[in-house]
Amino acid sequence: MAKGVGFTLRELARALHASLEGDAAAFVTGVAPLESAGPDQISFLVDLRYAEAAKASRAGAFLAGPEASDLPGPVLRVRAPQQALIELLALFHPPADVAPGVAPSAVVARDASVAPTATVGPLAVIEAGAVIGPHVRIGPLAFVGAGAEVGEASVVHARVAVCAGVRLGKRVVVHPGAVIGADGFGYVFDGQAHRKIPQVGSVLIEDDVEIGANTTIDRATLGQTIVRRGTKLDNLVQVGHNVEIGAHSIIVAQVGISGSCRIGQGVVLAGQVGVADHLTIGDGAVVAAQSGLARDVGPREKVFGTPARPLLEAKRIFVLEGELPELVRRLRQAERRLAELEARLGAAETRDG
Amino acid sequence: MAKGVGFTLRELARALHASLEGDAAAFVTGVAPLESAGPDQISFLVDLRYAEAAKASRAGAFLAGPEASDLPGPVLRVRAPQQALIELLALFHPPADVAPGVAPSAVVARDASVAPTATVGPLAVIEAGAVIGPHVRIGPLAFVGAGAEVGEASVVHARVAVCAGVRLGKRVVVHPGAVIGADGFGYVFDGQAHRKIPQVGSVLIEDDVEIGANTTIDRATLGQTIVRRGTKLDNLVQVGHNVEIGAHSIIVAQVGISGSCRIGQGVVLAGQVGVADHLTIGDGAVVAAQSGLARDVGPREKVFGTPARPLLEAKRIFVLEGELPELVRRLRQAERRLAELEARLGAAETRDG
Amino acid sequence: MAKGVGFTLRELARALHASLEGDAAAFVTGVAPLESAGPDQISFLVDLRYAEAAKASRAGAFLAGPEASDLPGPVLRVRAPQQALIELLALFHPPADVAPGVAPSAVVARDASVAPTATVGPLAVIEAGAVIGPHVRIGPLAFVGAGAEVGEASVVHARVAVCAGVRLGKRVVVHPGAVIGADGFGYVFDGQAHRKIPQVGSVLIEDDVEIGANTTIDRATLGQTIVRRGTKLDNLVQVGHNVEIGAHSIIVAQVGISGSCRIGQGVVLAGQVGVADHLTIGDGAVVAAQSGLARDVGPREKVFGTPARPLLEAKRIFVLEGELPELVRRLRQAERRLAELEARLGAAETRDG
Repeated sequence: MAKGVGFTLRELARALHASLEGDAAAFVTGVAPLESAGPDQISFLVDLRYAEAAKASRAGAFLAGPEASDLPGPVLRVRAPQQALIELLALFHPPADVAPGVAPSAVVARDASVAPTATVGPLAVIEAGAVIGPHVRIGPLAFVGAGAEVGEASVVHARVAVCAGVRLGKRVVVHPGAVIGADGFGYVFDGQAHRKIPQVGSVLIEDDVEIGANTTIDRATLGQTIVRRGTKLDNLVQVGHNVEIGAHSIIVAQVGISGSCRIGQGVVLAGQVGVADHLTIGDGAVVAAQSGLARDVGPREKVFGTPARPLLEAKRIFVLEGELPELVRRLRQAERRLAELEARLGAAETRDG
Repeated sequence: MAKGVGFTLRELARALHASLEGDAAAFVTGVAPLESAGPDQISFLVDLRYAEAAKASRAGAFLAGPEASDLPGPVLRVRAPQQALIELLALFHPPADVAPGVAPSAVVARDASVAPTATVGPLAVIEAGAVIGPHVRIGPLAFVGAGAEVGEASVVHARVAVCAGVRLGKRVVVHPGAVIGADGFGYVFDGQAHRKIPQVGSVLIEDDVEIGANTTIDRATLGQTIVRRGTKLDNLVQVGHNVEIGAHSIIVAQVGISGSCRIGQGVVLAGQVGVADHLTIGDGAVVAAQSGLARDVGPREKVFGTPARPLLEAKRIFVLEGELPELVRRLRQAERRLAELEARLGAAETRDG
Repeated sequence: MAKGVGFTLRELARALHASLEGDAAAFVTGVAPLESAGPDQISFLVDLRYAEAAKASRAGAFLAGPEASDLPGPVLRVRAPQQALIELLALFHPPADVAPGVAPSAVVARDASVAPTATVGPLAVIEAGAVIGPHVRIGPLAFVGAGAEVGEASVVHARVAVCAGVRLGKRVVVHPGAVIGADGFGYVFDGQAHRKIPQVGSVLIEDDVEIGANTTIDRATLGQTIVRRGTKLDNLVQVGHNVEIGAHSIIVAQVGISGSCRIGQGVVLAGQVGVADHLTIGDGAVVAAQSGLARDVGPREKVFGTPARPLLEAKRIFVLEGELPELVRRLRQAERRLAELEARLGAAETRDG
């Protein structure tokens, strides 16, 4: 994905609202990490833990925050280097121009609505009544089911399935292989067999949500499964029916959220966390990786373990578990000392008697 | 997925074999949960824990079991409200009519056999020798490999892969993105590299099985990987080669079952459970969420943890782990008391001496 | 997947470089496990634990190693029976002949390069600038993005997504539903929202790597996510951005590897293992199933648990946890004995006093 573009440091300083220390006419053609950057590339120091790597870097220029010092080249200095890095990467890697229009090989139902500024890739399928908004991009081999809606400027990548009736807001990004709106997992055992509860609800994905590759979000039994605005889901996440995830939460890869959970705003569920059904996770809660939740979690609580405990308690218990062999040894010794005392005291009492 | 349909309570009572308490002519146009139902909708109380929500509901009518009382509207009373709810949902949400036939954009091998009553969606691929039974629905962009068979009335949703030689029974449902019949994971290390053991077996899915979105079921090395009738697998489940899962089991999302396991009938593997290879799980066993099985589980056993223990034992240990800080404190105190006793007894013995 | 082929034991002995004990003219038509093999099939004893099953087998012949004895039929004896089994299976199940060429329904960009000996299946999409090497097979409904490269003799199965710019080496196998090169999961919270860090790097998959069904491997933020030669990944594995996995490692199903990890050569990550970001796992390390790594693991270390501990220590702790109820009982008894001793000694001291 190399580009033939390049910028002088003067141009970059202006674009990033950075103050420039060094040769304004120096020209860089790409962005690279500290270790691999060469003299024609700009690198970045967004975390001072990498200050040593920065000093050793051969980069032709550096993007850095206020505290960084002793950098071996010109510096574009900004207050928020991580956010400036986003701008820098966007300058060197502008999104590919995509011509609007429907690929001739796509299969679009006659009564589907595709905005003239939208792009529908080759071999995509858009079913009856679906609505594809302005500037939307539907990737190759993607599926948008009957009556589904994809909001303005959203990107539905190759091989995604947006099932019937699902609604995506604006600027939603869905990565390849994700499935939004498959049936929830609901059965009643009638004594002979598991009878399926019809899953007749839908899914609502609000604006600015991003959904990872091969992630699955089930439709509600009735009503809607909801992911609120700005929330980001990583790959291979499972979201059960009737779940609601609040705004600006982070759901890391391989998390599983059972049916009817309420996940708050600004929550972090780290990798491989599991959440039992009908639980409530409060705003700002943080659940450490691989934890298994069997109870509600309060706002801003930090928890860890299966079943999860408060984080500090879980850590203390983990340490004590490591000391179990020593504790057993001490208990055994105490028992020996007890036996000895009992014998000696018995002898003394006999003497006294 | 709202419908323009509606029923009087008299019609619903007849269809559900319910006794009606209230206005038989009242007309409802949909089903909704207690909280969101309006006067033109019927709601349901299938779990008495929600009795309070029912009393506060604005629903125009209620489906309920024998014990429910004080409902604020007409009641359709049945003995098994959960099963009646299934009928009720089916009445309001009849399956969409699908015209049989092969979409012009589908690619069907000349010697594949597609029943005249089957539906093959746009851009599906049916390879040589595949057999698509009567009333089957193959979704858009789905893949049915060479020689595979899909039994009567099964539904293979959009973007499913049924690989070569795989056999699905009747009324099987496979959700988008599932992959049935990819190679099992088998290698022999020859001192230099992992050499692949050809995976030349197949997969058999019996009648009435349901398979979740993006779930993967590997083909056997030799013979068959088997899922017996009526078993339900949720999303993102992994079933290894040569596994056999018995009838009417429930495999929740993100479970992983390693190669050659024998899972019994009526087993429940809760979310994110992992099962090591070659294990046997007895009929009716229940494995709690996130458990890791390293040994066989007996019939009707309930287990939990990694590695799993009997459920009650695991719970007791979990509580005692929480008391470890207190146990350490008590042990330290006992040691202090011992030291003091030893000193005092020594002094006494000296005096006595 | 039965075949109409067959071989005499003489032919098989020659092909496998085996010494033959028994009737060289005997004819077998297939390979089957010990339990199910019939008189016209050859079975195999590659693990002496199954010696009893071998003795009871009805197979017409056996493949076995030097130590196997008392087999009830002719024996093809080899030094390395597991590897010979690979040859045997390949003889009976030769790979299907696939005619080279591009299916008429595939959509191949005009400036993509497809080798004349390559096969592109129906409804596959090959985007601009992609390079499909000699003898490559691209399955039905697969997607190869702009500028991606698929090396000689690789197999990209049905419904795989190889995203833009991704490079696959030679003899790579990718199973259905896998997604290689979706965006990494990187955001900066700006106080209001999570802003996406452009993921402008790529993915490099070296020679002889195999990638399981529905596995996801994210592209790097900058630079490359790398899987080195000969490594095998099972189904539903997640590999984060900028990860590097060394050669000849085994990554079992549902493992999750967070961003920027360095996994060594010959490493085994068993099923459902989770690895936190930026960790280093040394060459030859073995991580037991469901473990959660929060720290580096040294070369050839064996670890288990969440957070992981050295394997033997983890096992000892697991046993001691099981003894916690007994330890609590012993502690309580020690406390009672202490109280009694204190009382008796107090009485003695009073007497002495």
